[in-house]
Amino acid sequence: MSTAAPILLTPGPLTTSTRTRQAMMMDWGSWDGDFNEMTASLRERLLAIINGQDSHYCVPLQGSGTFAVEAAIGTLVPRNGKVLVLVNGAYGQRLAKICSVLGRAYSTFETAEDQPTTADDVDRLLTEDRDITHVALIHCETSTGILNPLQAISKVVASHGKRLIIDAMSSFGALPIDARELQFDALVAASGKCLEGVPGMGFVFANKQTLDQAQGNSHSLAMDLHDQNSYMAKTGQWRFTPPTHVVAALHEALLQYAEEGGLPARHQRYAQNCKTLLDGMSAMGLSSFIPADIQAPIIVTFHAPDSPNYRFKDFYERVKAKGFILYPGKLTQVETFRVGCIGCVDSRGMQGAVDAIGQALREMQAI
Amino acid sequence: MSTAAPILLTPGPLTTSTRTRQAMMMDWGSWDGDFNEMTASLRERLLAIINGQDSHYCVPLQGSGTFAVEAAIGTLVPRNGKVLVLVNGAYGQRLAKICSVLGRAYSTFETAEDQPTTADDVDRLLTEDRDITHVALIHCETSTGILNPLQAISKVVASHGKRLIIDAMSSFGALPIDARELQFDALVAASGKCLEGVPGMGFVFANKQTLDQAQGNSHSLAMDLHDQNSYMAKTGQWRFTPPTHVVAALHEALLQYAEEGGLPARHQRYAQNCKTLLDGMSAMGLSSFIPADIQAPIIVTFHAPDSPNYRFKDFYERVKAKGFILYPGKLTQVETFRVGCIGCVDSRGMQGAVDAIGQALREMQAI
Repeated sequence: MSTAAPILLTPGPLTTSTRTRQAMMMDWGSWDGDFNEMTASLRERLLAIINGQDSHYCVPLQGSGTFAVEAAIGTLVPRNGKVLVLVNGAYGQRLAKICSVLGRAYSTFETAEDQPTTADDVDRLLTEDRDITHVALIHCETSTGILNPLQAISKVVASHGKRLIIDAMSSFGALPIDARELQFDALVAASGKCLEGVPGMGFVFANKQTLDQAQGNSHSLAMDLHDQNSYMAKTGQWRFTPPTHVVAALHEALLQYAEEGGLPARHQRYAQNCKTLLDGMSAMGLSSFIPADIQAPIIVTFHAPDSPNYRFKDFYERVKAKGFILYPGKLTQVETFRVGCIGCVDSRGMQGAVDAIGQALREMQAI
Repeated sequence: MSTAAPILLTPGPLTTSTRTRQAMMMDWGSWDGDFNEMTASLRERLLAIINGQDSHYCVPLQGSGTFAVEAAIGTLVPRNGKVLVLVNGAYGQRLAKICSVLGRAYSTFETAEDQPTTADDVDRLLTEDRDITHVALIHCETSTGILNPLQAISKVVASHGKRLIIDAMSSFGALPIDARELQFDALVAASGKCLEGVPGMGFVFANKQTLDQAQGNSHSLAMDLHDQNSYMAKTGQWRFTPPTHVVAALHEALLQYAEEGGLPARHQRYAQNCKTLLDGMSAMGLSSFIPADIQAPIIVTFHAPDSPNYRFKDFYERVKAKGFILYPGKLTQVETFRVGCIGCVDSRGMQGAVDAIGQALREMQAI
């Protein structure tokens, strides 16, 4: 696959195709009809990925994915709502922090970083606390790569008549999510993840009825998704200056997504990347922190080699010099590093990364 | 100058250089040392433009300029503060709307769209209402192109011991602002304006003492400038995923800014663009809405031709077909259109725009 060196094996920003970057070589007027058409096409293409045309709006938002997550909570949770936040990593903790800063009542349920929340947990928690109006969870927790059982949790939440907010930042586009089968008020993702665009915008799939009734909820002008959606419906334009080049890149990335074969093909490529990675690392004696059955093919956390010669910074620089950018671990108890499986990379590229990692560790005499 | 067609004569997004766009052809790891160095260099270069190294932090923020304005008000105005908002156009009104949504007490002082606020007005208003803690104003109001007397107003605000927040979105980098001469708590601008980067990030020059004391003020996690600045000081990284390609483009644009001769050269080129535009339009009988002495060389609002044959949409499409993108007027009382003087365009390009405008209006038999 055609990429710019070095190859990023980080969970966004990630490696994009030359064609996607080339789409940024033109300047667009944000008021112009051509740009408005691109925005409309982008929203349609995003909605089609989840079969959400009838049930949800796609509301794009300037900023990083976290901006879109905060906007979803601020706009869709009424000021007197209460959020149950399911936590098994740093991004779940960030959801709770957002509720805290926004002044929304919330409680957290925390499991170990290698333990998914279960539907039974959620059932029990919703039975115990009737004040809860919303459940918020991370689909794939990027801090480890663990996959939470979205389908089962969504059924339990719906059976209690509660609303669901899903941070699908690192899974959207690669793992199947169907709005006709799954009930949710908001599903949030961003440009620079599995769609392989560049970072700079997020988007929220918001339940139409819920968003239509959300006027006045938001704590923020810039992050008011109701206002953003109403203005876009009326004018075809973004409310405030859009990141035009980022939008153009994402649109071009979506064309390539469709050409590749959509979600099944994207999932298959990433699953193959993940397998190549796990097999290769295993042959070196390096094991994954997360058991295989709850490992999403998005990012893998590896235990650092058990050697006094291992230093992450040294390791990182050696692998970088060979053309690959890794990611540090995000666990406080265990020494780890992370390798992303997503981006414009195939299993041949992943094998190259495995080889570079092996070389680096041998140079360091750490394996 | 080397540009991508069509040429944008809009006040951001605007026309960028090929070199600036070319800087987006590489993917950057947001955790990587090379990217952190670029962020540090970008902040230093921005601070140098206002001689603010000793007095201010430069805090970059994901999103459009409005996100940065909201972040500045939310972070720097304490929750019990009161803001006097000076209004003579749509962006002043937006400042007031932000205060309203954030729940900050505020009052507005509104003058006609072709009337600058004066220092005397501010002096009187601050004398009358002792509850006011902050004054917020637009330096160059993009909805008309009018320039407000920043220097004089800042002196009055300082003499009353009050704090100043400046939205310098469309003037920063082209009109001189010196932090050694002007007292302000915040000055806000963005990547896609007179620095000629692409849109997708803003930045706030925040008074060091004020920002250091601003912990806990913010209504938002994503827009908390205190948190953003502390994290950046500690790690060299952005708190949440940065728009890496936008950052790279802005950094490349800043290198070109310095090579061109910095602010004096940028100002001179835009002033020449503005003169070419005004002279050419005047020869066609088209006059500016704003008197020459308060017209900033950023964007010019023209009265539409007094002809029954004139339709903005038709006019816009004809000029676009000739390679130039204009901007609609933003006044409710008078029929106008706007032409930007900023971006990677010189007076030769502006003459081309004038010629295209003349041709289009003659085709329409509107002049």
